[in-house]
Amino acid sequence: MKVIIICTLFISLINTPLLPLLRISAAEERGLSQMKSAQKEVYDAHRSYTRFHFTDNEMDFAFQWLLGSIVNGGAEIGEAFYVAAHIEDGNPKSWQDEWERMALRKELRARRALDAGHLITARQCLLKASNYYRTALVSRSVSDGKFNTISKKVRSCMQAAAPLFSPAMIYFEVPFAGTVLPGYYRPVQQNGTARKTLLMIGGGETFVEDNIFYIEPQAILRGYNFVTVDIPGQGMLPSEGLFFKKDTEIEMKAILDVILDFAEIDPERLAVYGISNGGYFVPRAATLEKRIKAIVVSSAVVDNYLMFKEMPFSKESQEQIDSWPAFKKAVTSGVTWRWGLEPENIKGQTEQTRGFQFNPALITCPVLDLVGAGEYVNRETERQQQEFMAKLGSKNKTLIVTPEDEGASSHCIGENRSLMAELVFDWLDELWPE
Amino acid sequence: MKVIIICTLFISLINTPLLPLLRISAAEERGLSQMKSAQKEVYDAHRSYTRFHFTDNEMDFAFQWLLGSIVNGGAEIGEAFYVAAHIEDGNPKSWQDEWERMALRKELRARRALDAGHLITARQCLLKASNYYRTALVSRSVSDGKFNTISKKVRSCMQAAAPLFSPAMIYFEVPFAGTVLPGYYRPVQQNGTARKTLLMIGGGETFVEDNIFYIEPQAILRGYNFVTVDIPGQGMLPSEGLFFKKDTEIEMKAILDVILDFAEIDPERLAVYGISNGGYFVPRAATLEKRIKAIVVSSAVVDNYLMFKEMPFSKESQEQIDSWPAFKKAVTSGVTWRWGLEPENIKGQTEQTRGFQFNPALITCPVLDLVGAGEYVNRETERQQQEFMAKLGSKNKTLIVTPEDEGASSHCIGENRSLMAELVFDWLDELWPE
Repeated sequence: MKVIIICTLFISLINTPLLPLLRISAAEERGLSQMKSAQKEVYDAHRSYTRFHFTDNEMDFAFQWLLGSIVNGGAEIGEAFYVAAHIEDGNPKSWQDEWERMALRKELRARRALDAGHLITARQCLLKASNYYRTALVSRSVSDGKFNTISKKVRSCMQAAAPLFSPAMIYFEVPFAGTVLPGYYRPVQQNGTARKTLLMIGGGETFVEDNIFYIEPQAILRGYNFVTVDIPGQGMLPSEGLFFKKDTEIEMKAILDVILDFAEIDPERLAVYGISNGGYFVPRAATLEKRIKAIVVSSAVVDNYLMFKEMPFSKESQEQIDSWPAFKKAVTSGVTWRWGLEPENIKGQTEQTRGFQFNPALITCPVLDLVGAGEYVNRETERQQQEFMAKLGSKNKTLIVTPEDEGASSHCIGENRSLMAELVFDWLDELWPE
Repeated sequence: MKVIIICTLFISLINTPLLPLLRISAAEERGLSQMKSAQKEVYDAHRSYTRFHFTDNEMDFAFQWLLGSIVNGGAEIGEAFYVAAHIEDGNPKSWQDEWERMALRKELRARRALDAGHLITARQCLLKASNYYRTALVSRSVSDGKFNTISKKVRSCMQAAAPLFSPAMIYFEVPFAGTVLPGYYRPVQQNGTARKTLLMIGGGETFVEDNIFYIEPQAILRGYNFVTVDIPGQGMLPSEGLFFKKDTEIEMKAILDVILDFAEIDPERLAVYGISNGGYFVPRAATLEKRIKAIVVSSAVVDNYLMFKEMPFSKESQEQIDSWPAFKKAVTSGVTWRWGLEPENIKGQTEQTRGFQFNPALITCPVLDLVGAGEYVNRETERQQQEFMAKLGSKNKTLIVTPEDEGASSHCIGENRSLMAELVFDWLDELWPE
């Protein structure tokens, strides 16, 4: 077992020829300490340690998530800050309107580029349009008819972008429970050569398209085929009656039955990566689905119920929740819907996760666990990572705490996807050297 | 002659099925109007219309320039905002220290990656280290010994990254005036096939490494070889007695004599792109150097003296300049040095540009001129673009004003390099269809 705590301490011990690495002002140190103390006691996945634009914390987290996608083609800095400057801080409606406006501008530009035969420009604009529509959805009520309309734009823009990759990215569907799980597949090359492959699974609030902006370009750059699929509870699947469920090995079987037929996927070198609540979904599946040859999580959720018990909606009273800022309430209601509950039943989420557990000892493939330093200060998060590492049935297991002083501290390391991807693929490269 | 004003007006005239595109609050509209009124009368290349982090305008512009490089591998959002959060707003020393710290962290990570054989990670970290060192230099006094030390880190990190590209990027030098002009060359493929090529020339305050983060990855993606070289006045050349000079056709000849020997460069499809003051350097060279087959500028400076007369250091008294904020004074002094003046002689710059003129009628190759909407509101900027377009000896000429509502409003469109590169390469693709 290898535990690497790449944190401030580690970095600052290294010889520093130019200047001391750390010198935070007293005021900043106080603010940071307060955030950390709060995170230690109450686990808020959307807590951040750096302000990006908004004073509304929940809105700033959503903005940070969008900004994190820039390195993977999901946004542009000028576009993002133009939108931010026009959003009324904390107002869910204003957030929706402004992102939709920017999405539309990119979509119009893509259409003109397509007409003129400029395929790379069209692709780049469609990707951003898809992601801006997706971002607009974050605060929209699922019972609002427009939620459905905009979600279709997320998909149609991505589907229009897909064939403009070279080789093409392919939209595909996994038959499941009378409906289908939507997925995308991008091979490094389409010549039938079997290669290493990353299957990316999102978390408790993702659409399958998010996973593309999380890591896809880095996979291709490193010579890994990229696949991603929505599982029950994710994307628009709740609208078809598919909510989060504990036995994720069932949908994983359905997914692998389909993708292992893709000629370019080497079944002996298939890694599955789960983020956020995917830190439960993926390892749980790996306890039973032995066609998974390696897993990565950011980070492990060994017991979903015990984790949710530490979250604000469990710790706070209904009265307190009623007085939450509008944006936080909107975002959390949207997630609640994914657990098969009425969106306003935010507190109900906790009970829904009872029995969402897995036994790490049953996982026998190599495991990488990444956790942001800002998340790791939470006691229950730390405890679950330690339990996960200690009990794993695999000998090849590594825990990396990513450092605050490289801006890699938050949930899923969403604000430094370069560093995150470097850790993931360097680890996989060592596992499967060419 | 084709003049495309892709501005707010144009976009808002298009049918909008989802929602009206523009709805700016009254307060924002007022702030925007004030900035525009100011820009109309006094041309400040570092004026911005969106705040990214700092209240110090000059520092915020430098930060925006850094953020703009994210899409081209020059930075990460988490790293950039971690640094910003630790900088004392407006303090030049604090700016230097914090960027150097982050540069060092990336450099250390690169070294560890190199040791472990993780070449892509090493390359990515070295690129960011180079750019963070470069960013640290922005506010450092040129007479400070460390200016030289850090500038060597900018180069050594880039030189270490160069061979890690595939095919390798090559550092080369153009013999000139008893010294050398430093350059980088990245071919799309290194198999001797002659391809379209973009030669990128910076402006009045750039290092050659900046040009890589401005556009290089987009060139390769589009199938264009990328070359960039510092000309007198740029990078560290002032320390060797090479300052900005008006007869740029002389260094352009020296550069072309070298690069046209590179096997992969098709001499019939060589475009040269100049940004900022490069909007003078490049077209001036093209009036005499006919081996240039197309030029792009952002944006045209037909008469450098008349442009500089509109800038704050010309319009304001010495007393006013003496009371400038520290960061603005530091940045402007650094630029002043490039004109062969004592750094504190900020006002002296105006006279140095006398005679920096060219006759557009002598340019006979195709021309693309890009100007951010926020720059175009300046009367003299608009006048010079109109004069440039009207007098050009070429029939194939296009002026594009890039729109504010896509966050593409500022100097060199530095905050939306995706959109900028799309316009450049789509135009070149139409010029030289495959």
